[in-house]
Amino acid sequence: MIKWVYIEDISKYVDQEVTIKGWMYNKRSSSKIHFLQLRDGTGFIQAIMEKERFDDELFKKVKKLKIETSMIITGRVRKEDRAPGGYEIDVTSIETVQEPIEDYPISKKEHGVDFLMEHRHLWIRSKKQWAIMKIRNEVVKAIRDFFYESKFVLIDSPILTGSIGESAGNLFDIDYFDLGKAYLSQTGQLYLEAAIQSFGKVYCFGPTFRAEKSKTRRHLTEFWMVEAEVAYYRHKDNMKLQEELVVYTVNRTLKNAQPYLEILGRDTTKLLTVKTPFPRISYSEAIDILKEAGKDAKWGDDIGGDEETIISQKFDRPVMVYNYPKDIKAFYMQLNPENDREVLCDDMLAPEGYGEIIGGSERIWKYEVLLKRIEENNLPLDAYRWYLDIRKWGAVPHSGFGMGIERLVAWITGIKHIREAIPFPRTIYRIYP
Amino acid sequence: MIKWVYIEDISKYVDQEVTIKGWMYNKRSSSKIHFLQLRDGTGFIQAIMEKERFDDELFKKVKKLKIETSMIITGRVRKEDRAPGGYEIDVTSIETVQEPIEDYPISKKEHGVDFLMEHRHLWIRSKKQWAIMKIRNEVVKAIRDFFYESKFVLIDSPILTGSIGESAGNLFDIDYFDLGKAYLSQTGQLYLEAAIQSFGKVYCFGPTFRAEKSKTRRHLTEFWMVEAEVAYYRHKDNMKLQEELVVYTVNRTLKNAQPYLEILGRDTTKLLTVKTPFPRISYSEAIDILKEAGKDAKWGDDIGGDEETIISQKFDRPVMVYNYPKDIKAFYMQLNPENDREVLCDDMLAPEGYGEIIGGSERIWKYEVLLKRIEENNLPLDAYRWYLDIRKWGAVPHSGFGMGIERLVAWITGIKHIREAIPFPRTIYRIYP
Repeated sequence: MIKWVYIEDISKYVDQEVTIKGWMYNKRSSSKIHFLQLRDGTGFIQAIMEKERFDDELFKKVKKLKIETSMIITGRVRKEDRAPGGYEIDVTSIETVQEPIEDYPISKKEHGVDFLMEHRHLWIRSKKQWAIMKIRNEVVKAIRDFFYESKFVLIDSPILTGSIGESAGNLFDIDYFDLGKAYLSQTGQLYLEAAIQSFGKVYCFGPTFRAEKSKTRRHLTEFWMVEAEVAYYRHKDNMKLQEELVVYTVNRTLKNAQPYLEILGRDTTKLLTVKTPFPRISYSEAIDILKEAGKDAKWGDDIGGDEETIISQKFDRPVMVYNYPKDIKAFYMQLNPENDREVLCDDMLAPEGYGEIIGGSERIWKYEVLLKRIEENNLPLDAYRWYLDIRKWGAVPHSGFGMGIERLVAWITGIKHIREAIPFPRTIYRIYP
Repeated sequence: MIKWVYIEDISKYVDQEVTIKGWMYNKRSSSKIHFLQLRDGTGFIQAIMEKERFDDELFKKVKKLKIETSMIITGRVRKEDRAPGGYEIDVTSIETVQEPIEDYPISKKEHGVDFLMEHRHLWIRSKKQWAIMKIRNEVVKAIRDFFYESKFVLIDSPILTGSIGESAGNLFDIDYFDLGKAYLSQTGQLYLEAAIQSFGKVYCFGPTFRAEKSKTRRHLTEFWMVEAEVAYYRHKDNMKLQEELVVYTVNRTLKNAQPYLEILGRDTTKLLTVKTPFPRISYSEAIDILKEAGKDAKWGDDIGGDEETIISQKFDRPVMVYNYPKDIKAFYMQLNPENDREVLCDDMLAPEGYGEIIGGSERIWKYEVLLKRIEENNLPLDAYRWYLDIRKWGAVPHSGFGMGIERLVAWITGIKHIREAIPFPRTIYRIYP
């Protein structure tokens, strides 16, 4: 039997006869030859079907095949320097698996975003979407390898939770048997803070939910986030860890995902600059930058998406903005001992206008201080009982951060909207497919 | 400055002075020496504090320290063959970071499960729970490496979905803005079936939800599942892939997690037998086994947890039970061409009475056949429109499976109840902590 091989391995089979199982994504024909463009999920290749080798009926049938026909072809692999991938196949036999019932709805012409999103289950077959997901695959693996090699322990935090995390609004809730409401988690951080007392260095990496009505190109209602937490790490250790993670991930992606970045036309010179150390500026300096840029910004204001764009465009690599006013940040952040209006936190803004990809901070680790902050913020003490508990027995200084995967992928791939950085995006208008 | 090192790396620092940051989990004292048992998340070590080297007040203070005190010690590393890990530390300085506010609630005495679950945020510090999570960490990494190395593309499937998956009951729902109800996904399979047309071989790995009122030791309302789907794979290819995944994962865990398996007292000879090929028996043969065991079983009955235990105990490695009656399996499974009362599926049952860890099948790939099955099952056609769409353009035979991570970890670690195989378990009675 002739061997079934994947296109990505084709270079190992030059001058051999192999079988490819895939789909026809394009074709052109002369009177004597069909040029079939095939893909099989791992790559693309041109298959040459010469009229003289086949009976007339089959040759005519292939001429009429619609794009997206699934097919199994067998043929001899030939090195062909003029071909995009460097190889071609001379077809010896061809079998159509399924011919489309109708014309494929996604054509080469421009489609509106709504149409493409409605057909996301088909749109992901397009070369660009394929390349983005191949890069996402590399990015996620790089992140997991980074943490594993750095001896972090994976602690999968729960999605269903009675506790609240960052902000009481913007939560999806469900009826949970006889226990009342449960919420879809906005962060695994609180659970990681419990886990560091057992494991020292931990991370979680899973879907996260925000019932926000934000409609920007940086928001999804469901997105993936990796969060890390380390016992005995202070603010500076935390910032160093973030930097190392991003450099590792970008380097790995540049190394392993080059062909996919090329498909996207990504200017990778913009990623080659991503080296340590990243610039660090204080929140106060960031406000000054905004003022200089003519923005009506003053100390105490939050830094939104547009402002992040202005700041991040001033640097050739991610910039870390540290020590924000405590009033615009979460209750659990450690106060700056040198300025009690500030907290020891940082946001990392990706360059080229991409903005925030990471938010991190040193956490309050003293029982009484945290209790006071929970009360000041009118948070439900009962839900936070276990979170306070952590500070009763062997509390330690600790720090951590969260990184949004779709924002990271959007920056690395150079796409505009994060909805293309996740296989099946969820926005306030979209729960289908 | 003296170097902060982790206990797992201590062998590199013999005769050097190092700093350890961690927690005291036990101690004993003679009049002249304190023996402090320390842990730092990476391992355990004994630190020796000799009275003559310290001032009286400090020596007395340490004698009174409660367990779970967080502390930073500095001392010289000494090889000590009698010590459990092979090393000890002679303390030169000691700093307590936080002394517990009260006595630690979890003591060496037996605690009830409810008490322990209520204190899960502390219970995870215990040596047994620590070891289980370290093993889970290895298991998850092994699975992700397996798929990455086998060139599968990670396709994170959505949690929030309008579609339904396996069974219409047992779903958690939320109000989703103006779009009505959304559901928490029971499976990513349907999305993977869309993705194989783009990527060939895909997997997803995330939390999964079942609003089931099951109270067995094998059920959680939230659990992690890895699912794989491959274009052009038939039933037999699918079973082979499952087998390879399980063998790879068990071998990697045996190789990398030996110290943690030892802490649990796991009889690893029971895992050394996990080699290909796994035994395969038909559903009909499984029914015969149950009858022989005196069970009142007949063809057409579902095989529940107790029955799985009986079957799986007959084998020294996982057994694959294939071709179940179609009426007790999901609507999307391909009919057995040799017996149309059966579907081309398999469940993999782990040995030692653990039961089902994998369920897989070949899927229906023809449009009209699937449409008919959706109608027969009275499923909402509108929600399945995109799922049907996949079969209109370039459909291919395909197969896939899902593996429950907590069940896998429970079997590998040899624990009884899967609630200890996940950091913060969710059952119908528990959403806290």
